[in-house]
Amino acid sequence: MAFTLGEIARRLGGRVAGDAAILIRQVGTLEHAGPGQIAFLANSRYRGRLAATRAAAVIVGADSESLSTLPRLVCEEPYLMYARVAALLNPRAAPVPGIDPQARIAADARIAEGARVEQGASVEAGTTIGAGAWIGAGCHIGGGVAIGEHSRLHPGVVVYRGCRIGARAIVHSGAIIGADGFGFANDGGRWIKIPQLGGVTIGDDVEIGAGTTIDRGAIEDTLIEDGVKLDNQIQIGHNCQVGAHTAIAGCAGLAGSARVGRRCTIGAGSIVLGHLTICDDVHISADTVITKSIARPGTYTGLYPFAGHAAWSRNTALVRHLAKLEARVRELERRLAAGFTEPR
Amino acid sequence: MAFTLGEIARRLGGRVAGDAAILIRQVGTLEHAGPGQIAFLANSRYRGRLAATRAAAVIVGADSESLSTLPRLVCEEPYLMYARVAALLNPRAAPVPGIDPQARIAADARIAEGARVEQGASVEAGTTIGAGAWIGAGCHIGGGVAIGEHSRLHPGVVVYRGCRIGARAIVHSGAIIGADGFGFANDGGRWIKIPQLGGVTIGDDVEIGAGTTIDRGAIEDTLIEDGVKLDNQIQIGHNCQVGAHTAIAGCAGLAGSARVGRRCTIGAGSIVLGHLTICDDVHISADTVITKSIARPGTYTGLYPFAGHAAWSRNTALVRHLAKLEARVRELERRLAAGFTEPR
Amino acid sequence: MAFTLGEIARRLGGRVAGDAAILIRQVGTLEHAGPGQIAFLANSRYRGRLAATRAAAVIVGADSESLSTLPRLVCEEPYLMYARVAALLNPRAAPVPGIDPQARIAADARIAEGARVEQGASVEAGTTIGAGAWIGAGCHIGGGVAIGEHSRLHPGVVVYRGCRIGARAIVHSGAIIGADGFGFANDGGRWIKIPQLGGVTIGDDVEIGAGTTIDRGAIEDTLIEDGVKLDNQIQIGHNCQVGAHTAIAGCAGLAGSARVGRRCTIGAGSIVLGHLTICDDVHISADTVITKSIARPGTYTGLYPFAGHAAWSRNTALVRHLAKLEARVRELERRLAAGFTEPR
Repeated sequence: MAFTLGEIARRLGGRVAGDAAILIRQVGTLEHAGPGQIAFLANSRYRGRLAATRAAAVIVGADSESLSTLPRLVCEEPYLMYARVAALLNPRAAPVPGIDPQARIAADARIAEGARVEQGASVEAGTTIGAGAWIGAGCHIGGGVAIGEHSRLHPGVVVYRGCRIGARAIVHSGAIIGADGFGFANDGGRWIKIPQLGGVTIGDDVEIGAGTTIDRGAIEDTLIEDGVKLDNQIQIGHNCQVGAHTAIAGCAGLAGSARVGRRCTIGAGSIVLGHLTICDDVHISADTVITKSIARPGTYTGLYPFAGHAAWSRNTALVRHLAKLEARVRELERRLAAGFTEPR
Repeated sequence: MAFTLGEIARRLGGRVAGDAAILIRQVGTLEHAGPGQIAFLANSRYRGRLAATRAAAVIVGADSESLSTLPRLVCEEPYLMYARVAALLNPRAAPVPGIDPQARIAADARIAEGARVEQGASVEAGTTIGAGAWIGAGCHIGGGVAIGEHSRLHPGVVVYRGCRIGARAIVHSGAIIGADGFGFANDGGRWIKIPQLGGVTIGDDVEIGAGTTIDRGAIEDTLIEDGVKLDNQIQIGHNCQVGAHTAIAGCAGLAGSARVGRRCTIGAGSIVLGHLTICDDVHISADTVITKSIARPGTYTGLYPFAGHAAWSRNTALVRHLAKLEARVRELERRLAAGFTEPR
Repeated sequence: MAFTLGEIARRLGGRVAGDAAILIRQVGTLEHAGPGQIAFLANSRYRGRLAATRAAAVIVGADSESLSTLPRLVCEEPYLMYARVAALLNPRAAPVPGIDPQARIAADARIAEGARVEQGASVEAGTTIGAGAWIGAGCHIGGGVAIGEHSRLHPGVVVYRGCRIGARAIVHSGAIIGADGFGFANDGGRWIKIPQLGGVTIGDDVEIGAGTTIDRGAIEDTLIEDGVKLDNQIQIGHNCQVGAHTAIAGCAGLAGSARVGRRCTIGAGSIVLGHLTICDDVHISADTVITKSIARPGTYTGLYPFAGHAAWSRNTALVRHLAKLEARVRELERRLAAGFTEPR
């Protein structure tokens, strides 16, 4: 797989400065790219590296065009162009079709043409696997599941009965789709399990990271819309809804029945508490706990600042006793209001 | 599986108002339930939905009885009744007994009658699987393990050697029971591994969520008592003890040797630090870090509030410099005490 | 496996007080150790237990030597000595060599002598498994991987193509090495996947906990140096670097391209944000989010204090409105500066 820089520009946009005939085989970093590789400058902080790079060509914004004499692909969004070039040079692998003799396929499961099911995988009754889908080694797909065309489940994914995953999904190892939601009613100190009767419905073009868990709904389905991107070790509780093209970073969690809008981003380790609604275009910073619904687009943050331990310790002692500090201010206000006539 | 409303009341309690002969096959939500389905009103916030519901019957408290003319099951705790009705209509699935020819069972492992071991599962030497237990596809059960009667391990669970799980457990996919605790001693900048010689002992009626990990003890066992409910992606460190009927929400963690009492609840993402003791009937809110032992029942919280990013930023800058603010208050106090005679 | 106390001291150091001929077979706790077991006192808080212990011998510091008449191993660091004694008495299990007939090994994979590959495991093309390595049941090892000598992968580990793990690694069940990093570029509201072309390189003597995920790099490798110890459910983003002999506690996370130095410790649930650099010998407390690079060794903390819910609630309301409190202090300062002449 190789393209001239000119051919890349014709396919993906951007303007070539310098030798358009140079052949590009792979992307690389400014620091380590060599012959046949194209690097990119997406952050002006790294401008200094442009001079020293040994890349064959570079992707730059117009403002950095003059900083290099290498063949350049000049464009408005270098990082987006890098993504496009990388995708062009590294197309998604298509599976070698076939069902491994050591896979276990229920008699009435339907495996479409061009799909691959690897050794040790199991596909239960009534499940359909779409054309060109790729079910990795040791995956377990419960009964009545639908996996869309060209979706790939890496080894060791579990999809419980009745869940649906759309087309072109990428599901990484260790992801668990459709385990029971955490639903219990308290009966005099003991917990009674509430059967989790809903499923999980996942749209098209969704990516699900390693070790991420998405619980089935209590009565109706948990819902992940098209184009959602979930990083590793995310927990999505039962009956959550995640709007299209929302991206959630690692170790974040949505508690049961939380609804997150479209085109949102949620930072690493953040939590949206249960039954809340977040509107479209909301950006939640890392390590932030959302404790009430958000109706306005914008960025929301709630992380507590770190410091050297001694400074943190002094400061946090004051935080613990903020009510006392406020009382002292109130006393000062009272004394000023009283005209300072009283003895201390 | 179907019951008349009258039959449900006879079995589970509650009083019928309206047609007791109506046949109920399933639970549903007020919004989407249809013929044959019973919905419930557990939160007065959703009263408005009662008028519009197309459910066959509804579960309500006495205070909401007059809000509907549908057949009603009137009771004190509608949510608990919903749980009971749902469990009645959706009994736990019993496994089709049998050991799959593609399961690997050690010669001296004992698989009791009525148990099921699915394809790709392995059960090592000296392990006993109780009557009616269900070991899902690809589970790995180490040697010397005991799994109690009617316990179900969903596909892909790993139980390390020597661990014990009681009766009627539900263990979801990706749960790992008995991996080594995180025990190392520092030897001049390098870590020496401390062999983890204890196991994990889990009582009866415990549910363990997808991706949850419970480490084996260093010398003695990690202990999970009867009726404990653990959500997904929880981490239980070595030698922890979790008291009976305690429920822990997703992504929470207990550091090594933490002891949590009975009937506690721990919110999502919270952490109990190592070697602490939490007494019975303690409720820990979401995203709270417990840094010292708790000896009194009650609710404890430690989450930092979120805000719009600009407001958070201003506010958090003040938090960082709270010591300065306190110094300003002290200076004001000093000046008032001094009688304001000094020049500024 | 048994040694006299004298033999232990000859091998591991320390000085024997009392009967050096007593035979020691195992370690135990002061509370529960019995005949043949050696207990240890590492924390003076537990001194009271020394008198009552039924252990055969005890490991103590010189300051506690006189507190017991049992055979004693007297040393400077009792906890470290306990680790050494436990390791001596419980040497790492060597695998029974052999490739299970139900493992799937690619024709050109190389499995060195003395290695063991268990049932249901798969090893893809071009992969090498070192001498004495132990690949547990159901592990999946992608193509072009290298696993070092005497490394052990517990059942159900996944290593994606092209990753390298050094010698003597211990990788616990559910760990996922080399899944795609979370790399996307936003194209007018939709996410374009950036192919993750790097791998993961892991040094020697690394331990990786259950459910921990280490993503492959975007262009170059994610790097885990020698002697690193990772607890359970840790997330390491793409292109992170973790310096030698650093230990990270459970549920912590490093966002993409974070670099952590050597001999650092990171507490449970803490997060280092992306593209930051932490120097050597930094200790990060539990539940701390590192939001900027750290260039000085030391301890850093950022956890928000918990309290009883009512106290937290009052206090946190003040935190939310700290800007108002500061304004009140400023107003007081202004009035004092103005000489209090104005009417209130």
